[in-house]
Amino acid sequence: MQFSKLDDISAFCRDLPHGDSAAADSAAARQQVLTKPPGSLGRLEELAIWLARWQGRAKPRLDRVAISVFAGNHGIAARGVSAYPAEVTAQMVANFSAGGAAINQLARLAGAELKVEAIELDRPTRDFTAASAMDTHEFLRAFDIGVRSVPDECDLLAVGEMGIANTTVAAALCAALLGGGAERWAGRGTGVDDAGMARKHATIAAALEFHSGILADPLRVAAALGGRELAAIAGAVLTARSRRIPVLLDGFVATSSVLPLARLASDALDHCRAGHVSAEAGHRALLEALRLDPLLDLGMRLGEASGAATAILLARAALACHNGMASFAEAGVSGRA
Amino acid sequence: MQFSKLDDISAFCRDLPHGDSAAADSAAARQQVLTKPPGSLGRLEELAIWLARWQGRAKPRLDRVAISVFAGNHGIAARGVSAYPAEVTAQMVANFSAGGAAINQLARLAGAELKVEAIELDRPTRDFTAASAMDTHEFLRAFDIGVRSVPDECDLLAVGEMGIANTTVAAALCAALLGGGAERWAGRGTGVDDAGMARKHATIAAALEFHSGILADPLRVAAALGGRELAAIAGAVLTARSRRIPVLLDGFVATSSVLPLARLASDALDHCRAGHVSAEAGHRALLEALRLDPLLDLGMRLGEASGAATAILLARAALACHNGMASFAEAGVSGRA
Repeated sequence: MQFSKLDDISAFCRDLPHGDSAAADSAAARQQVLTKPPGSLGRLEELAIWLARWQGRAKPRLDRVAISVFAGNHGIAARGVSAYPAEVTAQMVANFSAGGAAINQLARLAGAELKVEAIELDRPTRDFTAASAMDTHEFLRAFDIGVRSVPDECDLLAVGEMGIANTTVAAALCAALLGGGAERWAGRGTGVDDAGMARKHATIAAALEFHSGILADPLRVAAALGGRELAAIAGAVLTARSRRIPVLLDGFVATSSVLPLARLASDALDHCRAGHVSAEAGHRALLEALRLDPLLDLGMRLGEASGAATAILLARAALACHNGMASFAEAGVSGRA
Repeated sequence: MQFSKLDDISAFCRDLPHGDSAAADSAAARQQVLTKPPGSLGRLEELAIWLARWQGRAKPRLDRVAISVFAGNHGIAARGVSAYPAEVTAQMVANFSAGGAAINQLARLAGAELKVEAIELDRPTRDFTAASAMDTHEFLRAFDIGVRSVPDECDLLAVGEMGIANTTVAAALCAALLGGGAERWAGRGTGVDDAGMARKHATIAAALEFHSGILADPLRVAAALGGRELAAIAGAVLTARSRRIPVLLDGFVATSSVLPLARLASDALDHCRAGHVSAEAGHRALLEALRLDPLLDLGMRLGEASGAATAILLARAALACHNGMASFAEAGVSGRA
């Protein structure tokens, strides 16, 4: 896909590709005859059917699982909205490269290939309390990095991010597109103190006021109040849709990244599942607004795709059962009395 | 351990072995310096520290993970309390042996060794509405099968069960030991219809009335209202405690199996975690009564250790991070601002 202007994204969202209903129906029928009471594997059944729908295979596979982590820096970090200094973004990218971060361990365990894209870390977005974080061109360039990050062959994609101060960005996006103000969406992030929380609230309130004229336009909001790593996630998720690749979303920031897409088209995230609900205050409310039911609820709040990567394990559990179990007929087990 | 009379079990519960606090403290200290905000891996941190405590190792391992599934048959099955005929218990045991059940797939994925113990399937327990399901000798014999099932070398044990009609048994145990009557504890099990639910309620009510004189004695209740597979789970879990092996519990029936132990000693399940909360109605209330916070909530209700086996994946995720991540100092990442 080529998205060279904002209208290309809107146009794509007006005519989204759908999943394969026949494959989904076939997978659902298979779940009915496996040696278990129908429905008794709960969300593992739903996951298998969802993977079937988007892979277009009654017996889906997870041979090529990818995790994409995008990193960006933010002008508003200078406002003291994070517990960590902005240089940690680049330091953690180095840690990803060296294999020392949580996501490295989780990706290996999940049998997934990890790709990290650091996007212009030496050029933070502008402070969005008094400017657009990105202009349209900058937004589209970051979006395109996400577009190009999606592997040609991919059975499942997990997306996540790294960027000091970006829970403030996520909260600003949610407040802009869903209402409710800073109080509804701002949380402790990496562990900011009360004074930091007050700065976070003030930053978001100032941004909402400065950008009050554009709040009805999801893509302009994504550029003005977003971040490069968030734009890249949106690009990756939309490109996955174009290739019918199922996607696991990570936490609050990753989910807020695709909120603009969901505002453009209510079914834009049908190919996505929420890997988890994080401990970050706004995530649960955001998932509810998007009607996404998280797979895991482990109190995680790390980002870097860690929750989505953990959920890959559940997708593997789902397919292990779906593809490997015997049917009642094959096993000679009696049906219902 | 040798448990040749009920008093041996009570005596053991009065003087339970404890975990290794030094190993747990050391693991907790390590979590503080790994490259992530403290606490941001949520329950994955808690799992790593719990494994450290019971394995007595600051860096726990999961080289030898065992899943024990116990199967039994029940006199009350003849009362029509299940959606499936009683012969399904033996048929599913054959399915386990042939590798066709959900637990076979999940055990392989989780890197766990599956052991299935079918306990006198041709000799169902007595109908407990008018007799003791088991006498003391029968209970202890089944308990001992659980005791002997625990591998000599084991880093983590998951326990589960198979037994047509045993959610009625579990509900009867909960009602007897926690109060609230059949309505509080009986659920749909494998999918019983309204008439079956009415029979389930009546069966439990009749059992509570018949055994009203012994309800203050947890072990007599476990024999009179329990089942062989439930007794074996209790034996395995107590033996794991004696060897300081951490345990993942499966669903409603597996958890009800160890309820008598928790009634004997409030800390009897400190070495256990609830692998999941099942869709079976009473499980969430039972976990709350036991102050066990489930790791997964996937709407599963299959039994056969399927939820606990899925939770093994989370234990592996926890240790992958705990043992594999770099510290702030190692990675050269800045601490809090």
